[in-house]
Amino acid sequence: MRNYKLTIQYDGTQYYGWQRLPGKTKTLQGVLEENISKLLGYKVTIDGSGRTDAGVHAMGQVANVKTSGKIEEEKFVSELNELLPKDMYVSNMVLMKNSFHSRYNAKGKEYSYTVDSGQKAGVFDRKYAYHFPKKIDIDKMITASKILTGTHDFTSFSDNKEHKTNVRTVHKIHIEKKGNRIIFTVAGNGFLNHMVRILVGTLLEVGTGNMSLTELEQVLTGKDRGKSGPIVPAKGLKLNQVFY
Amino acid sequence: MRNYKLTIQYDGTQYYGWQRLPGKTKTLQGVLEENISKLLGYKVTIDGSGRTDAGVHAMGQVANVKTSGKIEEEKFVSELNELLPKDMYVSNMVLMKNSFHSRYNAKGKEYSYTVDSGQKAGVFDRKYAYHFPKKIDIDKMITASKILTGTHDFTSFSDNKEHKTNVRTVHKIHIEKKGNRIIFTVAGNGFLNHMVRILVGTLLEVGTGNMSLTELEQVLTGKDRGKSGPIVPAKGLKLNQVFY
Repeated sequence: MRNYKLTIQYDGTQYYGWQRLPGKTKTLQGVLEENISKLLGYKVTIDGSGRTDAGVHAMGQVANVKTSGKIEEEKFVSELNELLPKDMYVSNMVLMKNSFHSRYNAKGKEYSYTVDSGQKAGVFDRKYAYHFPKKIDIDKMITASKILTGTHDFTSFSDNKEHKTNVRTVHKIHIEKKGNRIIFTVAGNGFLNHMVRILVGTLLEVGTGNMSLTELEQVLTGKDRGKSGPIVPAKGLKLNQVFY
Repeated sequence: MRNYKLTIQYDGTQYYGWQRLPGKTKTLQGVLEENISKLLGYKVTIDGSGRTDAGVHAMGQVANVKTSGKIEEEKFVSELNELLPKDMYVSNMVLMKNSFHSRYNAKGKEYSYTVDSGQKAGVFDRKYAYHFPKKIDIDKMITASKILTGTHDFTSFSDNKEHKTNVRTVHKIHIEKKGNRIIFTVAGNGFLNHMVRILVGTLLEVGTGNMSLTELEQVLTGKDRGKSGPIVPAKGLKLNQVFY
């Protein structure tokens, strides 16, 4: 048995998210497993570092696959990429120890979220940016991001109540303006369901003046999803990389 | 009468190029004229700085339109962008002298061309980059680009014999590598038909070792399209800006 780590890039626009679903529903895991199995000649499943939601993209999703024997990585990736649809791309394949697991061994993740604040959505990234044509105070959002950085109970920023603990550490929230685009880069040791998208939605509330910094502090300590900002659309989100 | 300069961004994927064509053929000029006329309430034509070919994109195409009276620019652009399809975006509208003409007054243009040299085409820019998965020597192309820069007869780099003169000045050819992408930025006082795409196609011949620097010099002085490199696909080309 051999255990390989795959790094995957995808345009999530046409998929119902990462996780395999029964029937013909097109998911990233499903399409990858189908093509890897076809190439190997026997059925395998893969384990992703986490589930990305429907419409979310990835530059560096990680999954591991266990094969019955040794594989010539470069040739395999090349043939696999020929089989895969155009919106999916395996950029790397590395042999790991048998104990390696893409989810359990992940030490953290980095996401980016792109907001297009132009009057009309830009033509080249309209599938990869959230069009939000409002006046946004970047400096105020940067100040707000410092309140959210660090180790906190992020209950207010999650749509799922089933996590064992809602305490997470956000290592950084970087906010950068490039023309009309605002790019949020968020890294942490782990994220709750919808957490990055609610963090961005809440920072935009601050940036547009709908929420003060004092209110933001109350949202964080209040542990109440009802008080935080709206969840921003999936298409602006990209999983950049997984740290091990 | 008022004369306005429009700056236009477009994803050319779905169009048969800039120039208006008879019938229902979808062109950028045609769709723009139709929507501007609808908004004004009377029929107008627009003059572009030049024709981009089918499939070519633009960040800053320029056109001018003559209206019967004064227009509130900001409101007009906002309403026009609502009418226009998602792959077209008017980013600016400025009142000019009546004598201004987007083509006759253009002093130069800048284009960029993106090559994706990765094993499989990247998923996010696959409509905006030419997938060319070969080993490419960037430094050799940079040396080669210096041969092409300056004032020359570019007959070897044009597919159209109807130009009055084939002498043009190329101010710069900048070649930059970003990961797997190679971005060519080419600026000049004017370009012959297909010239940027043939320049890039020829530089790639040098970069892959199919053409030596001596041969490139002979191609330039030979004034023979048969000796230069192939024309690279339209989708990698973007008109960045027009200088006045």
